[in-house]
Amino acid sequence: MIVEILGIGTELLLGDIANTNAQFLSRELAGLGITVYGHTAVGDNADRLKTALKYAFSKADMVVATGGLGPTQDDISKEVAADYFGRKMVLDDVSWQAIQSRFSGRDMPKNVMRNAMVPAGSTLFPNSRGSAPGVCLQQDGKILILLPGPPHEMESMFTEHAVPFLRQKSDRVFMSRTLKIVGVGESQVEETLRDLIDAQKNPTIAPYAKITEVALRLTAAAKTKEDATQVINPVAQEIYKRFGQHIYGEGDATLAKVVLQKLSVSGHTLGIAESCTGGLLASSFVDMPGCSDVLLEGAVTYSNAAKTARLGVLQDLIITHGAVSAEVAAAMADGIAASSKATVGVSTTGIAGPDGGTATKPVGLVFIGLHIAGKGTVTKELRLMGERNEIRKRAVNSALDFMRTSLD
Amino acid sequence: MIVEILGIGTELLLGDIANTNAQFLSRELAGLGITVYGHTAVGDNADRLKTALKYAFSKADMVVATGGLGPTQDDISKEVAADYFGRKMVLDDVSWQAIQSRFSGRDMPKNVMRNAMVPAGSTLFPNSRGSAPGVCLQQDGKILILLPGPPHEMESMFTEHAVPFLRQKSDRVFMSRTLKIVGVGESQVEETLRDLIDAQKNPTIAPYAKITEVALRLTAAAKTKEDATQVINPVAQEIYKRFGQHIYGEGDATLAKVVLQKLSVSGHTLGIAESCTGGLLASSFVDMPGCSDVLLEGAVTYSNAAKTARLGVLQDLIITHGAVSAEVAAAMADGIAASSKATVGVSTTGIAGPDGGTATKPVGLVFIGLHIAGKGTVTKELRLMGERNEIRKRAVNSALDFMRTSLD
Repeated sequence: MIVEILGIGTELLLGDIANTNAQFLSRELAGLGITVYGHTAVGDNADRLKTALKYAFSKADMVVATGGLGPTQDDISKEVAADYFGRKMVLDDVSWQAIQSRFSGRDMPKNVMRNAMVPAGSTLFPNSRGSAPGVCLQQDGKILILLPGPPHEMESMFTEHAVPFLRQKSDRVFMSRTLKIVGVGESQVEETLRDLIDAQKNPTIAPYAKITEVALRLTAAAKTKEDATQVINPVAQEIYKRFGQHIYGEGDATLAKVVLQKLSVSGHTLGIAESCTGGLLASSFVDMPGCSDVLLEGAVTYSNAAKTARLGVLQDLIITHGAVSAEVAAAMADGIAASSKATVGVSTTGIAGPDGGTATKPVGLVFIGLHIAGKGTVTKELRLMGERNEIRKRAVNSALDFMRTSLD
Repeated sequence: MIVEILGIGTELLLGDIANTNAQFLSRELAGLGITVYGHTAVGDNADRLKTALKYAFSKADMVVATGGLGPTQDDISKEVAADYFGRKMVLDDVSWQAIQSRFSGRDMPKNVMRNAMVPAGSTLFPNSRGSAPGVCLQQDGKILILLPGPPHEMESMFTEHAVPFLRQKSDRVFMSRTLKIVGVGESQVEETLRDLIDAQKNPTIAPYAKITEVALRLTAAAKTKEDATQVINPVAQEIYKRFGQHIYGEGDATLAKVVLQKLSVSGHTLGIAESCTGGLLASSFVDMPGCSDVLLEGAVTYSNAAKTARLGVLQDLIITHGAVSAEVAAAMADGIAASSKATVGVSTTGIAGPDGGTATKPVGLVFIGLHIAGKGTVTKELRLMGERNEIRKRAVNSALDFMRTSLD
């Protein structure tokens, strides 16, 4: 099956956003063994959208389009699709009821009813993150899938509804395993796996780098799930052998989840004291429902005065070693554990930039402190690269990884 | 002048990278008053690239393409362009000498000579960041510009060489102003401006919605900068009249910047106590360099015990009204102000979900508390939509906006 990806929205043509939807869909479709021949992006203009659809279908059996499903006047994707396939627009009762219950008790803008208007004969994909359902139209051997533009809505809908639909169209089964690697850069991951990547065929090996980690996705095609698993497992095993404990989990594991789980299983409670990360580390725990059994308290002590008043870090210690030092990181971790009565205290202190760096303490220097009851207090020194917010994100990630590898 | 942007490279179709070049070019071209009608991306395949060129030129006077200029076998952009316009490939002496001097003293890969082969009759754009020059071809009223794929090479070349070339082609100047609106949904913004949007011509009015705010970009075309300003100003004034204080700033203003500025100017200091937002509110301040003069301390008090121990919120108050209540939000704001000795205390407490909601206190219910020394303590009740992290982001945004409108 040949696919074209079509981005709809004038904001793409004005450069207000990058077409990351096309990237996500390309990667996911490749993982399903579906070939993408091209991307197109057009503005919110009916004639030009119709021309783009014609062009896309001249090359492909299937077009996956994103954007233009919303309730406003410039959202025209469904109308143009209906026109293209010669269908009428009709009200979908199920969607309309879902929208009404979403808004129950709150004011509903008048135009939101447009979200329930769809081309006749569509299969609809429910939207678990928003109001506009997705639309799937099939005619004369051509398939058109319309997904919403906001990435979080589009990604959920694609995974939950489009993927099962696409799997039915294939006589092969695709299986994926994603290994999550932390503490090793993308280039080094690729060098370590060069022989496997060069020889890859089935399973395929695709590395995806984020600011703080690399995910390796192994995808196998086979006649049955069992066969696909047999194809993937030995390669996964080899990769585990090469990266050891740098692999912190698989699939939808996140470093914060793994750490929370470790803390919870061993009956630990947690206090967090943050300077340069300013609340981001605490936030990565509060991201997860049910963290309240473990996280007793977080303190953002950005100023030296707060480090002393709130955490009991001695002024002398700050004067002697500086606020950005292993000594102060350790005292912060001890201080938050003591004051919150938690068994584990973790701290960050560092220079996120752009100012404040010196020759001996440059921008990117960060210390993590970690107090574990009964085990004592350890610290870690980091030299992080990037601009202010990258440094902060990397510091959060390193603190989590330090906790992961230090806890039993 | 109508432009199409063409991305060339199989890595785009595999989703290995997002087409950020298309975004950069779209934004820059819009700033030059040049209309982009579409984006296309194709793989490193001569037939499909030629088809894409034909399609692009069927709609546009000019095509700006990125990628495929390198020295390897799969870099075919120049050859296909020469073929498309019926030109021969020739060696460009100047480029060849530049490449030789770039490599002087180092091993030169054999295939690098391909970088100096160009379609006959091209105008070349020097590459200050790499080996491959850019190519500009003009024929029968059509213009094709080929730029390198790596963003830093492409961006420099575009700015240094393509922009001066394009300015010569235009006799108009373009100016933009972006107004940032908070507390009004996208649909409502559009309804409020329906008459202006329907009548728009010069300036154009483009709304861009994020999870927490709407940006309105006004763009005017005129003969001089002064004239363009004259065209924009009355429309901007009218929009200010309609949205009043919902417009919190312009350009690269952010809500957190505006609030930090307000606090700083009036000599306030700040303490933050967070429950459901778990550190995100503090983090939005620490995002900004130099926040340490204002932000004295943040506390993440997710558990009831921490609210009592850390902020002095009376247990009785929590039992009587519940942790998610206006009363507790107010006590948290008072508590953090008192213990951090700040003149302003702000707090969040709410139900971010997915669990924990009840009929009277549903998921999305959030209270903001705000203590201002000498003015007393006020609270705000919010009913927010979305999943857990959207609710948390919206709560942070609402807290910032509540601070903005409550501070003098």
